[in-house]
Amino acid sequence: MRDIPDQPFPGWDPPSYRVDEQGKVDGAEPGPHHNWGRFGDDDQRGTFNHLTPERVVAAASLVKTGKRFSLALPIGPPTPGGYRSEPLHFYGMAAGDGILGSGRGGTRYPVSDDYIVMALQASTQLDGFGHVGGDAVLYNGYWAGLVTASGGARRLGVHHLAQGIVGRAVLLDVARHASVAHLDAGFPVGPDELDGAASAQGVSIAAGDIVLVHTGHLGWKMQLPAGSAEAADRREPGISTRAIPWLHDHDVAMIATDTAACSVVPPEPGDEFLTWHVAALRDLGLLVGELFDLDALADDCAADGRYVGLFTSAPLHVKGGVASPPNALVLK
Amino acid sequence: MRDIPDQPFPGWDPPSYRVDEQGKVDGAEPGPHHNWGRFGDDDQRGTFNHLTPERVVAAASLVKTGKRFSLALPIGPPTPGGYRSEPLHFYGMAAGDGILGSGRGGTRYPVSDDYIVMALQASTQLDGFGHVGGDAVLYNGYWAGLVTASGGARRLGVHHLAQGIVGRAVLLDVARHASVAHLDAGFPVGPDELDGAASAQGVSIAAGDIVLVHTGHLGWKMQLPAGSAEAADRREPGISTRAIPWLHDHDVAMIATDTAACSVVPPEPGDEFLTWHVAALRDLGLLVGELFDLDALADDCAADGRYVGLFTSAPLHVKGGVASPPNALVLK
Amino acid sequence: MRDIPDQPFPGWDPPSYRVDEQGKVDGAEPGPHHNWGRFGDDDQRGTFNHLTPERVVAAASLVKTGKRFSLALPIGPPTPGGYRSEPLHFYGMAAGDGILGSGRGGTRYPVSDDYIVMALQASTQLDGFGHVGGDAVLYNGYWAGLVTASGGARRLGVHHLAQGIVGRAVLLDVARHASVAHLDAGFPVGPDELDGAASAQGVSIAAGDIVLVHTGHLGWKMQLPAGSAEAADRREPGISTRAIPWLHDHDVAMIATDTAACSVVPPEPGDEFLTWHVAALRDLGLLVGELFDLDALADDCAADGRYVGLFTSAPLHVKGGVASPPNALVLK
Amino acid sequence: MRDIPDQPFPGWDPPSYRVDEQGKVDGAEPGPHHNWGRFGDDDQRGTFNHLTPERVVAAASLVKTGKRFSLALPIGPPTPGGYRSEPLHFYGMAAGDGILGSGRGGTRYPVSDDYIVMALQASTQLDGFGHVGGDAVLYNGYWAGLVTASGGARRLGVHHLAQGIVGRAVLLDVARHASVAHLDAGFPVGPDELDGAASAQGVSIAAGDIVLVHTGHLGWKMQLPAGSAEAADRREPGISTRAIPWLHDHDVAMIATDTAACSVVPPEPGDEFLTWHVAALRDLGLLVGELFDLDALADDCAADGRYVGLFTSAPLHVKGGVASPPNALVLK
Repeated sequence: MRDIPDQPFPGWDPPSYRVDEQGKVDGAEPGPHHNWGRFGDDDQRGTFNHLTPERVVAAASLVKTGKRFSLALPIGPPTPGGYRSEPLHFYGMAAGDGILGSGRGGTRYPVSDDYIVMALQASTQLDGFGHVGGDAVLYNGYWAGLVTASGGARRLGVHHLAQGIVGRAVLLDVARHASVAHLDAGFPVGPDELDGAASAQGVSIAAGDIVLVHTGHLGWKMQLPAGSAEAADRREPGISTRAIPWLHDHDVAMIATDTAACSVVPPEPGDEFLTWHVAALRDLGLLVGELFDLDALADDCAADGRYVGLFTSAPLHVKGGVASPPNALVLK
Repeated sequence: MRDIPDQPFPGWDPPSYRVDEQGKVDGAEPGPHHNWGRFGDDDQRGTFNHLTPERVVAAASLVKTGKRFSLALPIGPPTPGGYRSEPLHFYGMAAGDGILGSGRGGTRYPVSDDYIVMALQASTQLDGFGHVGGDAVLYNGYWAGLVTASGGARRLGVHHLAQGIVGRAVLLDVARHASVAHLDAGFPVGPDELDGAASAQGVSIAAGDIVLVHTGHLGWKMQLPAGSAEAADRREPGISTRAIPWLHDHDVAMIATDTAACSVVPPEPGDEFLTWHVAALRDLGLLVGELFDLDALADDCAADGRYVGLFTSAPLHVKGGVASPPNALVLK
Repeated sequence: MRDIPDQPFPGWDPPSYRVDEQGKVDGAEPGPHHNWGRFGDDDQRGTFNHLTPERVVAAASLVKTGKRFSLALPIGPPTPGGYRSEPLHFYGMAAGDGILGSGRGGTRYPVSDDYIVMALQASTQLDGFGHVGGDAVLYNGYWAGLVTASGGARRLGVHHLAQGIVGRAVLLDVARHASVAHLDAGFPVGPDELDGAASAQGVSIAAGDIVLVHTGHLGWKMQLPAGSAEAADRREPGISTRAIPWLHDHDVAMIATDTAACSVVPPEPGDEFLTWHVAALRDLGLLVGELFDLDALADDCAADGRYVGLFTSAPLHVKGGVASPPNALVLK
Repeated sequence: MRDIPDQPFPGWDPPSYRVDEQGKVDGAEPGPHHNWGRFGDDDQRGTFNHLTPERVVAAASLVKTGKRFSLALPIGPPTPGGYRSEPLHFYGMAAGDGILGSGRGGTRYPVSDDYIVMALQASTQLDGFGHVGGDAVLYNGYWAGLVTASGGARRLGVHHLAQGIVGRAVLLDVARHASVAHLDAGFPVGPDELDGAASAQGVSIAAGDIVLVHTGHLGWKMQLPAGSAEAADRREPGISTRAIPWLHDHDVAMIATDTAACSVVPPEPGDEFLTWHVAALRDLGLLVGELFDLDALADDCAADGRYVGLFTSAPLHVKGGVASPPNALVLK
């Protein structure tokens, strides 16, 4: 047997703040661009609130060809990016067992029943607002301590989004606009890149839009040889912290990329690894999607010149969860 | 220690059939109402094929009010019905840990990361075609032996449906038409009940429709005291085998109920427990939904008299799976 | 969709204590009977320290007949007692798959590979010292906050016990001494019952002993009809808080029962549900075993009049765990 | 969305054999060295039968110093070798949650409860007889088809070994005898190496012995930099197929190594990858251990010149399992 060394522990001092009965940290302050209080003092849904019935109706009117695009990666290894373990998919019963005289119904009624063990951010994912905080505080001033193993997300649970994220999808094909198959790792997508792509595509970002940024990175990553150094490299293009005001000013409801972190990795000078997530999730209450599989949609948009459609996403209705597969479709 | 007795085993004789390179059982025959070969000899999607682009466009035009209805039960115990274990929801990291000086980012960057362990049919569910077969055969003649623990569903995997189940939703409120809050356990919903509700509602079932049958059973079940005999009772209303020709004749794309089994439990005289599933899944290749939470939608339909809407469902893109949470929305 | 109500939250004030670099809560005090500091200020193993090499050698000399007794319940539902979900046992690959032309080696090399999903206290179990604390403090003054989802048990992890719990087993057959097949639910086993059984059996408890208390409850529980009210009843006989000084005075290394909670349920007047666990785990640092299957061992002891043997237990070597199947054997 | 291609399927013909009511394949024949029928026509425990009460008593008498050695690797990534996913360790409740006002007992009674998700062969492991077969047949002629996802191991389940593997441990330090810190990858340990080490150590292998072969490979592997090519390399030293007759002739009860496969990887010329496992598991019914952590024990044996001790192993009592952590101790 080999000993397991104790984890370092530097001691602990209690924090100086109190948390009120609403779950808010006394004196908590957001960053410069934020939506705290905008949708109500007790709001737990952030920019989800931009998805008004009127915008849903308008978005539905964009369905012209009847083409459907799922934005989900296959669940089944390997998944590019991320430090989480791969999903495990099990059969509690398999129809084939019936052929072998096993199973509930035998060969007369062969039955299958399968299970999944997965990190809710192991594949294509939606970040809930319990996912990342800053200085002990989550979106709208809620306390990070509200999220525990015992209680799950006592506030800001992903179940608040289960009604469905529905609105106008706008694909911004930044890679195509830059005339590359995929943006380089570390390339920051800022307001200029977003505006440039929109302009080239002839679309304007409107309040409540769901912005899908195609970098080409995911598709490139998936065709790399397994085990190669490039496959293991976590650097990737992504959204710049400089785009936070842009996202705020346009009242974007959701942003998603075909990368693992949404934000550029490594972060730009002056930023820490989670600076962007704090600004997006904690301050704006912005819906964030990652590992969205956008290649087929991007090809179709380029082919017909229409970069908009109806976006629907039904996250798993997990009580007190912090994330979910988004189960997102775009209908054009 | 107490001994674990050996499971009974009656011996085994090999089957007499062969399976061809396509995965079809030689000589397999469907029941009297079937879609085998209708969508191609190698079809693995069944009535999903009814969901044509034209029908998607038409269904999108039904979105008038912008109201969204998720049809998903909360994932978090208890779930009414079914013999499967309740989903387990875990936090690999919880933001609150940061407050305690633990976690990746500490109190400066509190981070949460959650996991789920669940039967893919533990809650609101879509049955894939690997779920139930009859006489060693699955939909379109595929061999039940194609579904194994090692390989998953080597054919008919639920990933074939990941593109999205999208079409016109028609709610048939059979309970309301019968002037009851919920149908009795064991009540069979046959063609007369379906036609009666449709007629009363002023809707006609058209090819490619997604038919949502409201029995009221689920809502009633959920308000029963936990541990009560009624809560444990698995009898429920549901679709009759007599409705199979009706479903076939109308080219219904999907049927879903607010019950655990879709089919009536116990089955009607002459039927075995899985007779309906074999006829629906194996013979028709019909998409089947269970434990759909239809109460709020039914209330809304009754209120505005509109029983149709746009249905979108993005099953998890699980390679070789047999079932999935449907992640279904109705937009009205 | 039905809404999930927010969990109640009463607000939060930071604690007034500090935690030092060793992980100890400043000013923490144990209860009246305790082993804090006894085995070192940084001790994380409690009464495990009683298991000296000399006692191991002496215990080994008790093996006379070569009979082996596993004290483990079968893992496979149903497990009596407890609020945890039943273990899930899955096959990632099953040898039978090879017969169906699936799996890694096919029919030539059929291979099985199985997985388990289980609460480490779902069946026969050893409580580690991170399991229960009192007033924010664990054994030896360590802070309860050291145990988090992110870090696991940063101190007092069950891995500290992985070297093996080995010593003299003494079975005290309290049920047999009381001339009953099983003690009644709610019956408290105090010093008198322990001494009475020991005296009747002709054994004396010595320092470092592993005391196995047979109440007969588990065996009775397992033969109850599933779903019966008695099967669901959580009341059970168990160790009284009055036995805490007895356990301390005798320098008992470990106590285990054939019940779910070890302590009597409901607790005796004046005690709360976890009073006993705090006294045993937090104050004494006592190894505690639950759901030990002692019937066969008790029968053998009664038959040959020898109530002692060599006890060996190798908990899973889980880094930062709080509990484990004990994997305990008694050799006589 | 990207398509998931169908798995290749070459068609299927039913086997020509029948399986009798005992679960035996008609006409099945073992390899040249075997124990089929030796312990009874219905035996499911193989060389476990060598562990007679007399041998248990004799082995217990070897405990002289009271030193305990666990042979278990830490469960917590990374585990060297193997293609299985790393165990996942979760906290359903963490004591620290109580500090944050969450959890069952709050700060007054902080409670932890942990879960494990693991391949039963993910770490130090015991192979059961359902793990590997040859030509559709398992140990003693049982049919490989008896192991299914639905039924688990309907015969030869690891629960048959739950009573405990107890006997004389003999460490053969082949690495030390070869004067190397660790044997080279691909180095086959045959009868000469085993006899040479035994002779040098002054021990003779007797019937019923548990032979622990120290190659030094595991300890070397664990100190390699994560992600290095050497860490990913699956080649390793191990037992040669030429040692099968030696294991049989000596009536060895169990063999275990500090390598992932027990057998040498890659296999020697003329062998396939699983040739050794078929000969050991299927033909001999030999207990096989892998990833045993033998370094500390080997050091102690070298220091005091005593290479024997009492071996105890209590596999998890998993109904119908094929493998388990062995939870093995050696007491010297």
